[in-house]
Amino acid sequence: MPRPILATIDISALRHNLRIAKARAPGARIWAVVKSNAYGHGLARAIRGFADADGLALIEPDYAMQLRELGWQKPILLLEGFFDMADLDIVTAARLEVTVHRVEQIAMLEAFLAMQTVTKVNIHLKMNSGMNRLGFTPDAFRAAHARLRALQGVGDITLMTHLANADDPLNARLPLQQQIATFERGIAGLAGDRSVANSAVDLMHPELRSDWVRPGVMLYGATPGGGSAKSFGLRPAMTLSSQIIGIQHIAAGEAVGYGSRFISATPMIVGVVACGYADGYPRHAPTGTPVIVDGVRTETVGRVSMDMFSVDLTNVPGAQVGSQVLLWGDGLSVDEVAHAAGTIGYELLCAVAARVPFVEA
Amino acid sequence: MPRPILATIDISALRHNLRIAKARAPGARIWAVVKSNAYGHGLARAIRGFADADGLALIEPDYAMQLRELGWQKPILLLEGFFDMADLDIVTAARLEVTVHRVEQIAMLEAFLAMQTVTKVNIHLKMNSGMNRLGFTPDAFRAAHARLRALQGVGDITLMTHLANADDPLNARLPLQQQIATFERGIAGLAGDRSVANSAVDLMHPELRSDWVRPGVMLYGATPGGGSAKSFGLRPAMTLSSQIIGIQHIAAGEAVGYGSRFISATPMIVGVVACGYADGYPRHAPTGTPVIVDGVRTETVGRVSMDMFSVDLTNVPGAQVGSQVLLWGDGLSVDEVAHAAGTIGYELLCAVAARVPFVEA
Repeated sequence: MPRPILATIDISALRHNLRIAKARAPGARIWAVVKSNAYGHGLARAIRGFADADGLALIEPDYAMQLRELGWQKPILLLEGFFDMADLDIVTAARLEVTVHRVEQIAMLEAFLAMQTVTKVNIHLKMNSGMNRLGFTPDAFRAAHARLRALQGVGDITLMTHLANADDPLNARLPLQQQIATFERGIAGLAGDRSVANSAVDLMHPELRSDWVRPGVMLYGATPGGGSAKSFGLRPAMTLSSQIIGIQHIAAGEAVGYGSRFISATPMIVGVVACGYADGYPRHAPTGTPVIVDGVRTETVGRVSMDMFSVDLTNVPGAQVGSQVLLWGDGLSVDEVAHAAGTIGYELLCAVAARVPFVEA
Repeated sequence: MPRPILATIDISALRHNLRIAKARAPGARIWAVVKSNAYGHGLARAIRGFADADGLALIEPDYAMQLRELGWQKPILLLEGFFDMADLDIVTAARLEVTVHRVEQIAMLEAFLAMQTVTKVNIHLKMNSGMNRLGFTPDAFRAAHARLRALQGVGDITLMTHLANADDPLNARLPLQQQIATFERGIAGLAGDRSVANSAVDLMHPELRSDWVRPGVMLYGATPGGGSAKSFGLRPAMTLSSQIIGIQHIAAGEAVGYGSRFISATPMIVGVVACGYADGYPRHAPTGTPVIVDGVRTETVGRVSMDMFSVDLTNVPGAQVGSQVLLWGDGLSVDEVAHAAGTIGYELLCAVAARVPFVEA
């Protein structure tokens, strides 16, 4: 038997959240983003949950091949494109669309396509419109476009960028509209679909024209910012739960956990949860991070250990060894736990460890 | 092809670190701790690296069974014991030794052992000597011991506790010596081996008598505190490396990454590394976290994204797309990276994600 910890995936929530993504972007086509093993939810489950998406997008060439093996027939997009020449065999074998974000990739494509005449590869040409991560500068974008357009083996070229502050549009250092304006200037006069929108744009900026939207975290029921997932009508697809495996009755003044960082002010009942940072629960979660035990909201106490952490059971009547513990899911959003730990729901969803058993709701 | 990121495991480092653990604890027997998939290094590799250990200790009953299937013949200890009755079938089938830390486990053992007469189960009876996590209070310990001793099917009973502050022995809230004194009082007059020492005790407190030592993080070449791993002669067993996949030349005043949290003071060359928090790199790592590119020490810039982060290449001559990036390993300890991110090496080692390919050095 595995330990009591369990991740439960609700495929119907994936479907529901995809419907919301679509409803928010009428007329646009949807790349459901499934990188990082579908944000920790599993590729096979993502295929079922996102069957109505127009395509799946991810960054891992090996996982893209898995999606084909699992039966996904519709388009697949590699969001970082290919990393070396060998990946181009996968691109053609698995009929992948690829992002091109640097000139070396164009050179590889030229060399690869010169050797064959069968394939038409669809390209998503990425502009660095101010995030300064991947992509061509606006000045270099046009030349890259022309060079790709000249290749016999290139099919559609979608005009793509990525926004640094879609969740914070008035960011003083790089306002959303500045990135959009840079993008518009860079693509002026170029034909092709536009791909701009991530989850935050889909939820909060329907005014931005994007022929393709690329929702990620929202599909899993967490928020990209700008409001709670629930306020957008999203449903959590993952529930992480465990059990109480030990109880200590402690006197006032006693310490709990590594470093003895928590000292009780009064007598307390402290429960030990079979969940630690090696399960993916954040070690940064401080005392006071919310947890639900037997349906009662309480909080963590002391340092998170590798395999356990402690919770205050003083006001959870009837709590005992075996009591159910909700780490996140319906009733306690992953975003709230992440916020308490100084991070974002994205990180927690992706971090659930291989030793945690997964089941479907 | 997978992405360029790669974890390389050096089995000889595991062996070397085990020899150090043994040399520090002359006469003691060694449980090499391999929970959490051998702190992310893999069970099969741990079996080879720790062949000279007296036993392997972990918390996952299903992984314990895997250790037997992989050919480990010597003792295996479940550090949290069994979670329910069904686990006891694994305990006997896989000849596991078990920690007993709560009275419910004794009741399960009584019920289970009453049904058969073949097995002798070795018990590690755990005392809560002040950490207030798992274990019997000193007062309850003696009764638990007597109840187990009365069982026909119980073999050896080892007297066990776990220290909250072995890395910080003068901790004002719970000094090391206070925990030891509590333990001594609780076991006074009881026969049996003592199991007290974790990595920090093994490295820093050889004066504490422990018949069994339970080194964990030190075996993987990271420090439990109290000094650098290197200062103890330990060698890192895991190297996490990747490559530069994009480069941006930015002007003074430009922003990098999500939230535009980093603004360049001068013109800079910024590289994008194929490694993000969904690979296990900590999202808490702030600008300035150390990274080595092409052998040159530099630092991160801006927010860590899910699949990438940026590094300053301004002073890394010749750095280009494809340049090798050392995230941690020989030359940059996981402890240093963890410290920069406000956590400990343990968390980073365990967090390396399933999508990262592993190879052996």
